[in-house]
Amino acid sequence: VKATAGAPRSGIPTFSTADLSRTGIYYAGGKYVREGDKATMGGSAYVVVWVPKQIKHPYPIIYIHGAGQTATDWEQTPDGRPGWAYYFAKQGYVQYMVDSPARGRSPYVPDYDGMLNIRTAPNLESVFTASAKKGDFPRAHLHTQFPGTGLMGDPVFDDFARTQVQFLGGGGPLTQDELSRDAFVALLDAIKTPVILLTHSQGGAPGWLTADARPNQVKAIVTLEPAA
Amino acid sequence: VKATAGAPRSGIPTFSTADLSRTGIYYAGGKYVREGDKATMGGSAYVVVWVPKQIKHPYPIIYIHGAGQTATDWEQTPDGRPGWAYYFAKQGYVQYMVDSPARGRSPYVPDYDGMLNIRTAPNLESVFTASAKKGDFPRAHLHTQFPGTGLMGDPVFDDFARTQVQFLGGGGPLTQDELSRDAFVALLDAIKTPVILLTHSQGGAPGWLTADARPNQVKAIVTLEPAA
Repeated sequence: VKATAGAPRSGIPTFSTADLSRTGIYYAGGKYVREGDKATMGGSAYVVVWVPKQIKHPYPIIYIHGAGQTATDWEQTPDGRPGWAYYFAKQGYVQYMVDSPARGRSPYVPDYDGMLNIRTAPNLESVFTASAKKGDFPRAHLHTQFPGTGLMGDPVFDDFARTQVQFLGGGGPLTQDELSRDAFVALLDAIKTPVILLTHSQGGAPGWLTADARPNQVKAIVTLEPAA
Repeated sequence: VKATAGAPRSGIPTFSTADLSRTGIYYAGGKYVREGDKATMGGSAYVVVWVPKQIKHPYPIIYIHGAGQTATDWEQTPDGRPGWAYYFAKQGYVQYMVDSPARGRSPYVPDYDGMLNIRTAPNLESVFTASAKKGDFPRAHLHTQFPGTGLMGDPVFDDFARTQVQFLGGGGPLTQDELSRDAFVALLDAIKTPVILLTHSQGGAPGWLTADARPNQVKAIVTLEPAA
């Protein structure tokens, strides 16, 4: 960034868009739930679309995030480094980054979709960021790579905590996996071409369910620590 | 977009990023709410940062959206046209587009922040998209410009309905206006330079509250149909 008045300070990290040519947003799937005066659009998935300057691969990547998270995972790390999306733009992939239904910018219908949970800070410390100190699972002592202390009060932890959002806790007519599958199948129907699914944690199950529903359109699934 | 295998089809609109040089995301404000094992990060605001190729203005624009909406309003219209953000990138403004606290990608803390509402489709028809046919306010008959019929089943209306998300309905320790003000003041403290606030509807009140809290840093407020 040119050292111009008005440019973001170093505390607000930004990254070059030199490898991008176009961006857009899209809402996949969804339907009206409830009847009459209560009819409300639910179940759709917000999608961020990135088109690289040079498309070098025929199959776009669809990213499916994990619990408590949104598609911001792919754009930026909590300690201010560029996410994989910038890397894969440089590699020439078209990318679709979804917020799971009822999460982030995808609508949650109160009194219909079910209960909501959110991870507490101590839970994040134990499960993700300071497992070697606070985790109670067999290999917790090996988890030492989160930047900083991984504890409340560390600026990287606090910024990671800020990325955590509420997520479905059951009690609705559809599970998160079912809602996600339906919306992601609608996304595939809109994309029309074959795709690669890149899934993480809670995103694991809906990735496989989506591939089961559209087997000829899913050319590969790359999955990270998948749940299910 | 080059007619390459893998490029988004026309049903998934995208727009040129030729006027952008850098993008990033930022979470402004927030604090740990509740105590001990229940401590949870709440109150922060998700911010999308767009830096233009040529910064032509010393004061960035901060956009504050209305009720039921998120910062996607500024990126794209429901009928697939580019939003104002692309236009102001061309004009050379640095832009910060916030999701209000407890909305969109900004976390909502269940059992703490209060109740949630969402607009029904008939409410959207009456208030926003088909007021001339269904509205019951004095000048409803003049509201005829929403694309399409403005009714459920019209593709533009249905896509508009997909952009609606749940929003605070009261009962929490802070109102939406107070949560928003606190997060936006934190954003101003991170930006450090003077700014222009561009506010819409429910965003009106937090814009003025933010200016009251940092009067030397808010050079202008441009407000559209402000509430409060």
